[in-house]
Amino acid sequence: MTHLLSIEELSKERIWKIIDGAVSLKTERKNGGHKKKPLEGQTWAMIFTKSSTRTRVSFEVGIRELGGSVMFLSSNDIQLGRGEPIKDTARVLGRMVHGAVIRTFAQQDVIDFANFSGIPTINALTDDAHPCQILADLLTIRERIGTWEKKKIAFVGDGFNNMSRSWMWAAKELDFELAIAAPQGCLPTQGYLDRLNASNVTLTTDPKEAVKDADVINTDVWLSMGEEGQTEKEALFADYQVNSELLKHAKSSHIVLHCLPAYRGKEITNEVLEAHADSIFQQAENRLHVQKSVLCRLASYGQTFRGMFDSH
Amino acid sequence: MTHLLSIEELSKERIWKIIDGAVSLKTERKNGGHKKKPLEGQTWAMIFTKSSTRTRVSFEVGIRELGGSVMFLSSNDIQLGRGEPIKDTARVLGRMVHGAVIRTFAQQDVIDFANFSGIPTINALTDDAHPCQILADLLTIRERIGTWEKKKIAFVGDGFNNMSRSWMWAAKELDFELAIAAPQGCLPTQGYLDRLNASNVTLTTDPKEAVKDADVINTDVWLSMGEEGQTEKEALFADYQVNSELLKHAKSSHIVLHCLPAYRGKEITNEVLEAHADSIFQQAENRLHVQKSVLCRLASYGQTFRGMFDSH
Amino acid sequence: MTHLLSIEELSKERIWKIIDGAVSLKTERKNGGHKKKPLEGQTWAMIFTKSSTRTRVSFEVGIRELGGSVMFLSSNDIQLGRGEPIKDTARVLGRMVHGAVIRTFAQQDVIDFANFSGIPTINALTDDAHPCQILADLLTIRERIGTWEKKKIAFVGDGFNNMSRSWMWAAKELDFELAIAAPQGCLPTQGYLDRLNASNVTLTTDPKEAVKDADVINTDVWLSMGEEGQTEKEALFADYQVNSELLKHAKSSHIVLHCLPAYRGKEITNEVLEAHADSIFQQAENRLHVQKSVLCRLASYGQTFRGMFDSH
Repeated sequence: MTHLLSIEELSKERIWKIIDGAVSLKTERKNGGHKKKPLEGQTWAMIFTKSSTRTRVSFEVGIRELGGSVMFLSSNDIQLGRGEPIKDTARVLGRMVHGAVIRTFAQQDVIDFANFSGIPTINALTDDAHPCQILADLLTIRERIGTWEKKKIAFVGDGFNNMSRSWMWAAKELDFELAIAAPQGCLPTQGYLDRLNASNVTLTTDPKEAVKDADVINTDVWLSMGEEGQTEKEALFADYQVNSELLKHAKSSHIVLHCLPAYRGKEITNEVLEAHADSIFQQAENRLHVQKSVLCRLASYGQTFRGMFDSH
Repeated sequence: MTHLLSIEELSKERIWKIIDGAVSLKTERKNGGHKKKPLEGQTWAMIFTKSSTRTRVSFEVGIRELGGSVMFLSSNDIQLGRGEPIKDTARVLGRMVHGAVIRTFAQQDVIDFANFSGIPTINALTDDAHPCQILADLLTIRERIGTWEKKKIAFVGDGFNNMSRSWMWAAKELDFELAIAAPQGCLPTQGYLDRLNASNVTLTTDPKEAVKDADVINTDVWLSMGEEGQTEKEALFADYQVNSELLKHAKSSHIVLHCLPAYRGKEITNEVLEAHADSIFQQAENRLHVQKSVLCRLASYGQTFRGMFDSH
Repeated sequence: MTHLLSIEELSKERIWKIIDGAVSLKTERKNGGHKKKPLEGQTWAMIFTKSSTRTRVSFEVGIRELGGSVMFLSSNDIQLGRGEPIKDTARVLGRMVHGAVIRTFAQQDVIDFANFSGIPTINALTDDAHPCQILADLLTIRERIGTWEKKKIAFVGDGFNNMSRSWMWAAKELDFELAIAAPQGCLPTQGYLDRLNASNVTLTTDPKEAVKDADVINTDVWLSMGEEGQTEKEALFADYQVNSELLKHAKSSHIVLHCLPAYRGKEITNEVLEAHADSIFQQAENRLHVQKSVLCRLASYGQTFRGMFDSH
């Protein structure tokens, strides 16, 4: 494994290994810290063109607890915005740092960075994919209800944002039923579904139908970063709130997940969020553990890069 | 001791212990560094919604010299400004980091963060309180004139900003005379004074009276951060400049303190600032030492947090 | 050596020692890292009022790989912009950190910081000088063509920006021929040339003449940071593009250097940049190695600062 660019490219076996690794790392941390420091001597760059709390904190803490150094580069700090092509930035950074965590808009930018830099690259959210969040969600499901296998997972909200897309690719590889409820116009395109080709993913415009007998109910902000103020789009979601009325349709043992930040009174009520705060903030914490597990798998690749340049 | 939210909540004994600790840490640093690293393995978040030089540098250096890692989060970098309630941010960070240093406007935000995060929290300046600066000032007074006990300390400037408020609560607990000179309208309210209930604090609108026979003369910017450009408020302070004329009323052995940044020609003349630069920049340096002393007292609490979550 | 403020103040011997040191450090890094950590226990401040990718990353990685801690302070984060005089900021930082790397506009600010802080200070780019880049360029020339001695080096672009100025002072001390081609109005003033007093530096408005039989062809952006949008100035450079036509005049074994970021189609064609990408990105990487070499020479001075204050 050399990069983590999307959940789509991970096999079932690799997902399981990442989650298993995260469980071990979480236990180690509780017991006082990690004996092995696979990122010792490495510096990782975090390149963020979108602001973030959870993503930034979980990666910075994770990299450091694994022995590495972190360099946080926001779009204010580096010259990406000054028009330098990503392939130039990637070629420079690839000679100086040992890995990169990128949070930006275009998936292609992350792919280009990985290709041109030659260093392990992690997608920490793009418009298309949010693999780290899905991995944290899977770990939370395993901790809370034992397994995701044979379970029904509902996603209520924007059916074609980075979270719902990532859930679809996870469903294709793993053995659970995924029901997505979204307004018309916020559902995946037919072309996307054809490429996905997963019979265990169902789409509906009726949130009750998606939530019916579900073990896990997921939601996410209605408007992604950059869409703030699109009141017309927001209005489409009026009937897609996760509230106690909707949750009556779920299995009585259901859990609720939200990748945060939450907008109370919009996609979720304050009542539901606070009633499920234990699992939701556990889910947030699990970002740390799954990302560490990914970092451990990429670390050895990162170490080999030294000396691969200027060999003349 | 689990937090440092204001000087108000510190007993006389605790203040003495913090200052004593700072003296030891300062000596250790001069002699080549600290043997014990109480923050080893810990990551502390610094959450700053106001920019800062002294506060940021002194905390980052202090945390690192005590063995910890620092994560600096400005309001540009995290989503606090995107409307996430502080109780959500606090619950996320509380699971990932071992302590927090917060510089913001509302005191209540720091209190809420401390309560919801469950991790040691330090107030690094709010509109109400600036406990770290007072501790640095006390250390400087002890180093420069031996003790604050039985001394007269004058504060000339805004009588109701975070510095003058903090000085009042320090006076209540410690045995010195505090004389505050401020224009009408910039003095503490009667309700505040009733709650303070300290007979060794006197208020006046006459700077000469406050400075008369004083051992220590303090001043601070006339307009706090966020008040810049309030020329009407600024005009009130025309007669409250600390200059050589005013200092003639002080004890001949007086020292001048300024928590910086200084506006020469406003609250202090260039002549006075440069004549007292030794004590003023020593005072700035002392931020580092007193904050380290506070960090040492909070570190053990920080270490116990591991494993207190997700115990199911 | 206590500071690196400009190439102008470095003797030939010192330049050679820095480059020799960089070669050793580069080899050590390839072989797995540095045995000696001369910055152990030190924290260095990076004070940037201009954004940067290469400069920031190369210094942060360099300081850390030498055992030090880094504190990155952008103009957003610190109060320099709030009107605090540099001599106050310098006196505060000088008591807390062990060295400073400054990237700003006015050369005088870096000089003042060095004088008032009393800590080792590195100029990481000002309007006048960019010594770290010149050192990286010299290392690249040595690696690519063996030596700069007896070579012809052409600089095509703004003949009076920080890069061309720095090249002139390097030429004065080192034994190569420097030919600068720039439009009228972008050439050094006569006063500057008189002060330089270097017979091996020639100026021309004809790029072909400068490039004729050159071993090394350098270029740089036409408009420096802060000059963006000056279309009148940009128009002057229409005939000063480094393209394959111009390079026909160079020695057939020529190399092309560019300190990046590059504006393809302006000062350099995409074709030339990509054809010479190996040397150009090697040049970028060499920033890391020469800066480490400078840091090693300044580190011992940095360590002596502890305890030099508050000796009363």
